Amino acid sequence: MPRPSPISPTVDFDRDGVQHGFLRLPYSRDDSAWGSVMIPICVVRNGEGSTALLTGANHGDEYEGPLALYELARTLDPKNVSGTVIIVPAMNYPAFRAGTRTSPIDKGNMNRTFPGRPDGTVTEKIADYFQRELLPRADIVFDFHSGGRTLDFVPFCATHILSDKDQETKAFAAVEAFSAPYSVRMLEIDAVGMYDTAAEEMGKVFVTTELGGGGTSRAGTVRIARRGIMNVLRHAGIVDGAVEKDRTRWLDMPSGDCFSFAEEDGMIETMVDLGEKIEAGAVVARIYPTGRTGQAPQEIRAKMSGLLAARHFPGLVKAGDCAAVIAVETG
Amino acid sequence: MPRPSPISPTVDFDRDGVQHGFLRLPYSRDDSAWGSVMIPICVVRNGEGSTALLTGANHGDEYEGPLALYELARTLDPKNVSGTVIIVPAMNYPAFRAGTRTSPIDKGNMNRTFPGRPDGTVTEKIADYFQRELLPRADIVFDFHSGGRTLDFVPFCATHILSDKDQETKAFAAVEAFSAPYSVRMLEIDAVGMYDTAAEEMGKVFVTTELGGGGTSRAGTVRIARRGIMNVLRHAGIVDGAVEKDRTRWLDMPSGDCFSFAEEDGMIETMVDLGEKIEAGAVVARIYPTGRTGQAPQEIRAKMSGLLAARHFPGLVKAGDCAAVIAVETG
Amino acid sequence: MPRPSPISPTVDFDRDGVQHGFLRLPYSRDDSAWGSVMIPICVVRNGEGSTALLTGANHGDEYEGPLALYELARTLDPKNVSGTVIIVPAMNYPAFRAGTRTSPIDKGNMNRTFPGRPDGTVTEKIADYFQRELLPRADIVFDFHSGGRTLDFVPFCATHILSDKDQETKAFAAVEAFSAPYSVRMLEIDAVGMYDTAAEEMGKVFVTTELGGGGTSRAGTVRIARRGIMNVLRHAGIVDGAVEKDRTRWLDMPSGDCFSFAEEDGMIETMVDLGEKIEAGAVVARIYPTGRTGQAPQEIRAKMSGLLAARHFPGLVKAGDCAAVIAVETG
Amino acid sequence: MPRPSPISPTVDFDRDGVQHGFLRLPYSRDDSAWGSVMIPICVVRNGEGSTALLTGANHGDEYEGPLALYELARTLDPKNVSGTVIIVPAMNYPAFRAGTRTSPIDKGNMNRTFPGRPDGTVTEKIADYFQRELLPRADIVFDFHSGGRTLDFVPFCATHILSDKDQETKAFAAVEAFSAPYSVRMLEIDAVGMYDTAAEEMGKVFVTTELGGGGTSRAGTVRIARRGIMNVLRHAGIVDGAVEKDRTRWLDMPSGDCFSFAEEDGMIETMVDLGEKIEAGAVVARIYPTGRTGQAPQEIRAKMSGLLAARHFPGLVKAGDCAAVIAVETG
Amino acid sequence: MPRPSPISPTVDFDRDGVQHGFLRLPYSRDDSAWGSVMIPICVVRNGEGSTALLTGANHGDEYEGPLALYELARTLDPKNVSGTVIIVPAMNYPAFRAGTRTSPIDKGNMNRTFPGRPDGTVTEKIADYFQRELLPRADIVFDFHSGGRTLDFVPFCATHILSDKDQETKAFAAVEAFSAPYSVRMLEIDAVGMYDTAAEEMGKVFVTTELGGGGTSRAGTVRIARRGIMNVLRHAGIVDGAVEKDRTRWLDMPSGDCFSFAEEDGMIETMVDLGEKIEAGAVVARIYPTGRTGQAPQEIRAKMSGLLAARHFPGLVKAGDCAAVIAVETG
Amino acid sequence: MPRPSPISPTVDFDRDGVQHGFLRLPYSRDDSAWGSVMIPICVVRNGEGSTALLTGANHGDEYEGPLALYELARTLDPKNVSGTVIIVPAMNYPAFRAGTRTSPIDKGNMNRTFPGRPDGTVTEKIADYFQRELLPRADIVFDFHSGGRTLDFVPFCATHILSDKDQETKAFAAVEAFSAPYSVRMLEIDAVGMYDTAAEEMGKVFVTTELGGGGTSRAGTVRIARRGIMNVLRHAGIVDGAVEKDRTRWLDMPSGDCFSFAEEDGMIETMVDLGEKIEAGAVVARIYPTGRTGQAPQEIRAKMSGLLAARHFPGLVKAGDCAAVIAVETG
Repeated sequence: MPRPSPISPTVDFDRDGVQHGFLRLPYSRDDSAWGSVMIPICVVRNGEGSTALLTGANHGDEYEGPLALYELARTLDPKNVSGTVIIVPAMNYPAFRAGTRTSPIDKGNMNRTFPGRPDGTVTEKIADYFQRELLPRADIVFDFHSGGRTLDFVPFCATHILSDKDQETKAFAAVEAFSAPYSVRMLEIDAVGMYDTAAEEMGKVFVTTELGGGGTSRAGTVRIARRGIMNVLRHAGIVDGAVEKDRTRWLDMPSGDCFSFAEEDGMIETMVDLGEKIEAGAVVARIYPTGRTGQAPQEIRAKMSGLLAARHFPGLVKAGDCAAVIAVETG
Repeated sequence: MPRPSPISPTVDFDRDGVQHGFLRLPYSRDDSAWGSVMIPICVVRNGEGSTALLTGANHGDEYEGPLALYELARTLDPKNVSGTVIIVPAMNYPAFRAGTRTSPIDKGNMNRTFPGRPDGTVTEKIADYFQRELLPRADIVFDFHSGGRTLDFVPFCATHILSDKDQETKAFAAVEAFSAPYSVRMLEIDAVGMYDTAAEEMGKVFVTTELGGGGTSRAGTVRIARRGIMNVLRHAGIVDGAVEKDRTRWLDMPSGDCFSFAEEDGMIETMVDLGEKIEAGAVVARIYPTGRTGQAPQEIRAKMSGLLAARHFPGLVKAGDCAAVIAVETG
Repeated sequence: MPRPSPISPTVDFDRDGVQHGFLRLPYSRDDSAWGSVMIPICVVRNGEGSTALLTGANHGDEYEGPLALYELARTLDPKNVSGTVIIVPAMNYPAFRAGTRTSPIDKGNMNRTFPGRPDGTVTEKIADYFQRELLPRADIVFDFHSGGRTLDFVPFCATHILSDKDQETKAFAAVEAFSAPYSVRMLEIDAVGMYDTAAEEMGKVFVTTELGGGGTSRAGTVRIARRGIMNVLRHAGIVDGAVEKDRTRWLDMPSGDCFSFAEEDGMIETMVDLGEKIEAGAVVARIYPTGRTGQAPQEIRAKMSGLLAARHFPGLVKAGDCAAVIAVETG
Repeated sequence: MPRPSPISPTVDFDRDGVQHGFLRLPYSRDDSAWGSVMIPICVVRNGEGSTALLTGANHGDEYEGPLALYELARTLDPKNVSGTVIIVPAMNYPAFRAGTRTSPIDKGNMNRTFPGRPDGTVTEKIADYFQRELLPRADIVFDFHSGGRTLDFVPFCATHILSDKDQETKAFAAVEAFSAPYSVRMLEIDAVGMYDTAAEEMGKVFVTTELGGGGTSRAGTVRIARRGIMNVLRHAGIVDGAVEKDRTRWLDMPSGDCFSFAEEDGMIETMVDLGEKIEAGAVVARIYPTGRTGQAPQEIRAKMSGLLAARHFPGLVKAGDCAAVIAVETG
Repeated sequence: MPRPSPISPTVDFDRDGVQHGFLRLPYSRDDSAWGSVMIPICVVRNGEGSTALLTGANHGDEYEGPLALYELARTLDPKNVSGTVIIVPAMNYPAFRAGTRTSPIDKGNMNRTFPGRPDGTVTEKIADYFQRELLPRADIVFDFHSGGRTLDFVPFCATHILSDKDQETKAFAAVEAFSAPYSVRMLEIDAVGMYDTAAEEMGKVFVTTELGGGGTSRAGTVRIARRGIMNVLRHAGIVDGAVEKDRTRWLDMPSGDCFSFAEEDGMIETMVDLGEKIEAGAVVARIYPTGRTGQAPQEIRAKMSGLLAARHFPGLVKAGDCAAVIAVETG
Repeated sequence: MPRPSPISPTVDFDRDGVQHGFLRLPYSRDDSAWGSVMIPICVVRNGEGSTALLTGANHGDEYEGPLALYELARTLDPKNVSGTVIIVPAMNYPAFRAGTRTSPIDKGNMNRTFPGRPDGTVTEKIADYFQRELLPRADIVFDFHSGGRTLDFVPFCATHILSDKDQETKAFAAVEAFSAPYSVRMLEIDAVGMYDTAAEEMGKVFVTTELGGGGTSRAGTVRIARRGIMNVLRHAGIVDGAVEKDRTRWLDMPSGDCFSFAEEDGMIETMVDLGEKIEAGAVVARIYPTGRTGQAPQEIRAKMSGLLAARHFPGLVKAGDCAAVIAVETG
């Protein structure tokens, strides 16, 4: 039998009303022998009903999710709720406070850490608590992502192609309700360690997003996030009111040919902007050697036609970095 | 008498043709007792005529300039030149290689280091070389900037209001030729240490830009940079061909009321996107405390009406950071 | 079958007399391909008899133990000994040399690492050596602690409430012999990974202390440590001479209400000093926000009446840090 | 003519009432191109009268001063004031936030930086602002110190022996009013760069303290600080009410023989506690080599008789560290 | 069943000709969310035949191997090959790029990481790929080592004494063919985690070297490496042409007495140079305390007679470092 | 008038006999508020006579000098001395303790810091003390150098061509007496900040060396250093006994063509070893790009014929590093 989680919540998941509290995770270290990581959590409950588990900052440098969820936690009125909304606006809280993708404590990438371990690193302990305590409470699981400091995406909502078609149908309906400018059907090749997989294997309706990136947020993408999450909660019957539908364009990333990788270090120029069209064979990015002038840049050519769905964000690039992702519009 | 610069160029500024070389700056350090900083430089010369001195990466995390200038150095044909084009695509080269605003060697902010010192830090030695060797050779000085990792700007070309109105007129004509989407008249309050000031005090025509930011570049802003610099060189009669004029909108930043500063640490939400309108008194940014849920964000209100010309870029903000800059359109 | 420990001792545990040597732990690293950690060890033996295993610096920033044990190793005369005294004055030697709670090599907290692993990190290898080589040799195990850099305690000697009452009785008798100003009966909730647990599960008499803290020592607490350890060795019949008894006050920490945690970052003020009385409901600590003046401090109130037994030491505090511990005097 | 200070206050020093604001110091850096250091300042004014300038955290790891001054800023009622109280509770604010003696930005030791420079480092800019803007406004200048992380002192209030005996008399009267357990007459040998000197050279009444140390505070020393500063303000006629006198013991540190320095690295044992007596020739501290057991500690002997007034705080010591300071009681 | 390796090669191991490509290892991190480690690999194949797997920079600060192998990859003509040569000139590529023994990513010592793990650290993933993908393809495995930054060796080629005498004979024949100035028969005491062991346990002919050290290379040792590897390939019948035999001297390191360890920190003086004779009992190294002048150095005496085969390289030494290795010439 | 040096010596320069002491330099810092740098110094004096000032570790990673001088300080008998020998075996002591060229405290390169400043950085304070206190006492000044971690030299003794030919003659006689395998006449182009220059400008006989490098020492080069310094002291009449002359070969480095610099980052191969001949136009070093296999190395060709006198030491090289130095034998 696994040992119990060392995390103790200061909220009661079965109490009606709004509670603002913490998941307290003891963390002994050089600068605090008896210290803890205090992960903010909000529970809004109004009687029986479905439970939605909402998370942001699974990666700590992605802001549309936290901006939507701190605001939601502050403003959601239990009178408009039937059931329970559990909000953890900054899931990998140490990473979020540092503004980094992974935890500064243990370099843990939360989305490759599931199912976690109760006696592991701080990141593993958080994953274990979600795995064994929070996910089992949920009916619908919504996890916000954006590109973070090093990637930028066209704004989309997405879920996975699943073997359980009933579960898949419910998830795509939630994506549809979110009404992002783009929606994506994802076929995960290597799903090991993902929060997505943990939720889906428990049969939950799991929905996620990519809503921009670059380690910032934009007024426009924050509006998409806020409207979208309310739409999903309304669609699920947990918040009252009608879904505010908007047009979405469905994208596919059909194969590994979608992804282009740099093979040199240098300065990157992306030849089209996000959402723009690119033809197979055209130069999608160039990588300049910077040690001297007069040298030709390396050219990375598109392996397929489509639109630029994601790109490397920083001006410098390293060999092995994903330079560009092309997607195909399907409807 | 000041001691001579320790920097030795491997190019001959008086030789016709294209030369790709280095400014070699001896730099003894723990990991190389007899090491040097090698700053790439390109000289394209064709006979007598005016000299343009073009620089990028005065701040090391700004990419439109380097992308325009490495490309220009690689492709500019001396046959199309009358006079000399000196290109230093990465002025603060150590900062550029590190992808940081300031030099990783000495934390030097190049644009606050002029006139520099021949026996100072690496950054001061570079500034001194520009001050005493490169600026005196130039007729027109063009210095590319963008917002870097922590700021984002609407794309503009700019120069300063000067007491010498003839010099000012020439500079504004060059800005006009650049044809950025926006153009800015700047009144520098605190000009101490700036490269701008160093050039202007020698009577040079000095032009600069802000072409985006966030530590990335966009296909669109790179196109603006490339067309603009060719326009300026054509306008100056150094490169043959006609200026490709485009519409520009002139902006003013009339007073300190343009600038809004954060007074709290937290997560920032900018309420409008760059180029969008904002009214005086409206909330231009909100700063969320992130230590717990349920707390109201701090609101920063616009002190004047205008359009959002610049903003803090990263998702996290610290007390004292400039959150937003509002500009007024004048024509 | 587990692989053998990589640690080799330079002392012979079965030889009479005084030996000063090392536990040599091979540790290959960037700055020494064939390097080792050399943990000082002293063995004082005089014929058959009981064996005491004495350790300090289980946490590397606690000094009463090392000050007592380096001195004991230097001065203990085998003529006064019957049996064996094994002294490891700095158990987590890399941490001790760095003056930090955990090991600078692997961030290992020695007291959460048992039973260790022979092929693990440096800290795990040390734990494994104690688990499989040193603890089995011992009859009585004494492990010095103080509060370290970040906690401060009233000086006490302690042991655990055990299910084996005979073992418990022997341990409490040793605590009584130590004669610290305070003595504590501890009920360990989460004993996983502790050296205490490792020793107790082997049926050893295990005794420990908290003798101050703050990453320093005081003349007074060092005297307590030196007299106490001699008392315990005399009590055990390993060193000749009579126990120097002194009055001790017994304390209990009956429940989780003893512990108060900070929920904000800031500057801490503890309202009473160690050993002083506090009433339930009184403010035990205040946490000042420091970003601006004029804001009220957060108040932390005592959940029970008693005396202040431990407190957060540094002037700054983080959310999640233990601010204060209250204990109840029982006799 | 020196350039003006880059620091802009958000408070009006000539306005009646309580103002909580900032000294804003522009600080461009890699993680904030247009960032600032925001130093909290509070002004409490009620009409004409004397001005007191009160500072804490001149060294960033000393807490009695900030604890007294944040509280004073929050609670001082202008109705009880005649004149002006300027409170900067954390003078070297970047150091204070980091919990370090010197500034993490530039390693500046504020108390060796006067008179500062307007175009220097961040610490130099703060010093310059005090030198040219704040000190000239003051009649009485009170600067709190404690020992910080690495020293511990008996609690005393102090001022310097001055050539201007009238100025000196006023300063000692203020020390007397403070009523610390100890009071010290200091003869500064090397006063270059000190805030003390800057204030005294302008003819101000300057008073300072050492109120403990170790990078913490104690309930007792905080009470001394709070009562003391109110006493000084009452004594100066700026706050109404009577001075709460208490007995103080006057100490002298007559020569360099007061100070003992370590000549070896090792673990330190101080043989007496603060305030205890020590005879000339007695061992005041011992330094243990820790690389192996069995070696004799180095002994440091007192060069004069007196009481232990200050000591090295951390358990480890380096060659060159001041190990102990002995003072002589004079009344 | 273990999960598949996350590494994907860009070369086809079954294609004839020369291919220069990468082992691409996905590595998500703060500065590249979708980044990879790109390990250069070269495959030279000409029809059926034996396969040699050649590696350098198993430890990242050893240069004779990479200098031989990058050059071999660039110049080896498939026309001269029968079978396949797989060249990975920098096995622990992150360590090689950093110039450090272990990986800067995870501090992984490649030669203590076998058999690795597909879901482990970056170093473990590389080891796993060699274990499961590359080693099975090989008949002969050649792994270049030198002493790295902290050790220096007389140049030798070596292999292990094995229980399978047929395998051992083949390996020693390959060592003989290499024709280094010295050759060594190694009896590995603790072979856990070594690449050597992984190869030998699969029945491969495994050969290795130590060809100098100090984190540099010499013209002489590079020539030895280049001639040696061609000799081994010729000997194996994979490259045509005759082995260029040269005289080698066989050395033995018969027991733990070969190794001398420092017991103090200090500055080291090695009393003889590499390859020179030393008598048992003579001082082989002295360690100077540097804190003050006038102190005698610690003397380390040779425990056996022989020649100095290896030594600590840096001028400073730490307690526990291997100071010197003595070998016995056997033929 | 400059302020006095803050450094206080614990030795008396005018006392006969052997004294081992310190130059104590107060250094207040975060980890020791009242700390000091303790630079070991030894004075051996026997009556009136000339004074020699001997220094090692002007650069902290050079070991022949410290090995010769700690030993000399320990063994020099005043009976054999006429006059005074002042020995500072580790001039830049903080750098020496860190094993780095420059000081870890302030990155100061001691040999570019003269004349220093009494109120500057730690390195500047040391330089100032030599400039104003030690150099004036000396008649002959001997400063040991080797190549340090990043350069390696053939072992030579050297001094400068001076305008004062009498001074020059005396210096070359001392070089001759040293009897290193090589001797060098140096014409310093840029002598600003050097200890050499400081000594020579005071009219002192100044002698220096380069005795190997790589951050290590060899038994052979240490013997050269020890014999050489005794020879110089005998030659100067300060130590009795005859100079042990040995053959030296005189080298010249006639122009900038001696020096070859890398223009690319990569892995370096030096084509000849130190002391070997190279012809003008031959490849002296090759720099391999390491990002992929199959690419040709950059070739650096000798600009003149001679022997390899110095070379870049580490296996990796950066653009701008000095790759090789060629010298011409003159006698």
